[in-house]
Amino acid sequence: MSNRRKVQLQCPMPKLDFDVITLGHGSGGILTNQLLDKGVFDLLKNEILDQRHDGAFLEFDGRVAFTTDSFVVSPIFFPGGNIGDLAIHGTVNDLAMCGATPKYLSLSFIIEEGLKMTEFWEVLYAIKDACEQSGVQIVTGDTKVVERGKGDKLFINTTGIGELHPKADISVANIKVGDKIIVSDQIATHGIAIMSIRKGLEFETTIKSDTRYLNYIVEDLLDNFDSDVHLLKDPTRGGMATVLTEIARDTGLGIDIDQKELPIDDQVKGACEILGLDPLYVANEGIFICVVSADKADECVNLLHKHEHCTHAVIVGEVVDEHLRQVVLTSAIGGRRVVNMLVGEQLPRIC
Amino acid sequence: MSNRRKVQLQCPMPKLDFDVITLGHGSGGILTNQLLDKGVFDLLKNEILDQRHDGAFLEFDGRVAFTTDSFVVSPIFFPGGNIGDLAIHGTVNDLAMCGATPKYLSLSFIIEEGLKMTEFWEVLYAIKDACEQSGVQIVTGDTKVVERGKGDKLFINTTGIGELHPKADISVANIKVGDKIIVSDQIATHGIAIMSIRKGLEFETTIKSDTRYLNYIVEDLLDNFDSDVHLLKDPTRGGMATVLTEIARDTGLGIDIDQKELPIDDQVKGACEILGLDPLYVANEGIFICVVSADKADECVNLLHKHEHCTHAVIVGEVVDEHLRQVVLTSAIGGRRVVNMLVGEQLPRIC
Repeated sequence: MSNRRKVQLQCPMPKLDFDVITLGHGSGGILTNQLLDKGVFDLLKNEILDQRHDGAFLEFDGRVAFTTDSFVVSPIFFPGGNIGDLAIHGTVNDLAMCGATPKYLSLSFIIEEGLKMTEFWEVLYAIKDACEQSGVQIVTGDTKVVERGKGDKLFINTTGIGELHPKADISVANIKVGDKIIVSDQIATHGIAIMSIRKGLEFETTIKSDTRYLNYIVEDLLDNFDSDVHLLKDPTRGGMATVLTEIARDTGLGIDIDQKELPIDDQVKGACEILGLDPLYVANEGIFICVVSADKADECVNLLHKHEHCTHAVIVGEVVDEHLRQVVLTSAIGGRRVVNMLVGEQLPRIC
Repeated sequence: MSNRRKVQLQCPMPKLDFDVITLGHGSGGILTNQLLDKGVFDLLKNEILDQRHDGAFLEFDGRVAFTTDSFVVSPIFFPGGNIGDLAIHGTVNDLAMCGATPKYLSLSFIIEEGLKMTEFWEVLYAIKDACEQSGVQIVTGDTKVVERGKGDKLFINTTGIGELHPKADISVANIKVGDKIIVSDQIATHGIAIMSIRKGLEFETTIKSDTRYLNYIVEDLLDNFDSDVHLLKDPTRGGMATVLTEIARDTGLGIDIDQKELPIDDQVKGACEILGLDPLYVANEGIFICVVSADKADECVNLLHKHEHCTHAVIVGEVVDEHLRQVVLTSAIGGRRVVNMLVGEQLPRIC
């Protein structure tokens, strides 16, 4: 609600002839033009988008990273954000994880007929805000509308291009035995925020999604530790467990994780217990895992602590020459167990 | 059916533990990995995709075009193609219309739970085929699954990057009075192919969608006529009428169109009459409109005629200094009427 009020104050919705999105808004004809002219183009305006060609013209000199993500999160509004900022942050962060500075995004909507214009406007506004904060521009887009019952309010695809950080040398191939594994902040927050609202727990908790942009933090890390940063990964769908098992699989090495080091908010931990979820498998949006040279790990953590959203950064594990291709967790009471990749679907439509 | 047999012969589906796509395939966990390893990555394999990072690393030196499109066509299989090749051709052609050589595409699926794996495989195979033919590579992707009733079998987003043709100077600003308007082939074919199958006319007609790649034709045109090619547009959603009215609006000039010159297949014309549709508003996928200098227009048409899918290329109109910002059509019997942009939705979910 406070978000909705903020939108109304800062960027009032233009007067339109319609209250809901209809199939005609996806026709490519007059209604599409009206929607774009009075909504999307005005709000997201920048020099490149204003050219309004079918494609955007960009200039590059050197290596770029290119990544895509479709967002189908349900519900589209959740504590801490909505599908709009989630879609921007998601692609911005994927570029950051490549060691790139995010620059340009495409934005494509698949709208279910009947979506309220006020809801669409709120999503658009969150997109505008997230772009400004993370320093990216929407330069091209597309809008499709499907019949009622053939979609679910709103799906968004964002695809992004970023320029590679000159000091980045991010590759699984650089990981070696002894490397430390750092997690940048508390885990499992996004997934639990979504589940709380779906399961009706939202009035008992104040858990908000951690959806946020990570690009400036990653730039700072690369500026200072360049090739000692071996790998960056954001543990979104499938959570920490899936990302760590992927690293073990792809390096052929083992990974040791210490459960008592895993940073987790007390409320999130409690909600995991109520919902019967293992926080290692719960989705995150605003944290990342960083595999770094052992001798730089403490300095990395110290640098992360200077960033607002990394105050809980901590070394949680290490790359080892044992139990190859497996992740082994030492539990809080000292037991050891193998961590597997997520089987099946723990939390559908989390992003 | 013949398409399905072709798929089975040329690229047999791998043996899998599942016949249909489930929510788990969108989890980011084991099932997602299985689907990607045994399906997508194998079929679409190339050096960049094989790196399997969250993003692709590309190298550019100079100007590029960047464009996005989401495809929600219903049904996903139609005479002449399916949502897979449509999605590749659509983005390849948008890049070509920018005067760019299409190079790299991202590919993002939103799958409705329950999609048969054989159908998904057929779509994947069409994607592979279309990529090979048009000379592009899928370099990064994403897969999401939504619950039954929250999608419609399959939606696809493709976002593409192309390198600008060195001789291209495509801009509405280059259009001047006297320029000729060429259409590259017969109109209204795609929309009528889709409508025929939706309305149960498919056994009476043999109309196939014109979905196809246009990039090599456009390259040939730019190689030979460079800056005399002022604008390229593919009249997809909203058809010829919408594209022409957009050009009139954006140039501030008038456009005259001669109805008797409009190339249209007899069966398509008949189907338009049965369905009560004006072919000017019906969607196309495999044709384009080209605005060229008057003195080069005949040569352009001659060059187009050498291409298999441009044998009906013809000058259909001209840019004029009258009825500014309006398109005026001279009918076959000599009457004149203003052509407006598509109002509402003529054919929902045509692409």
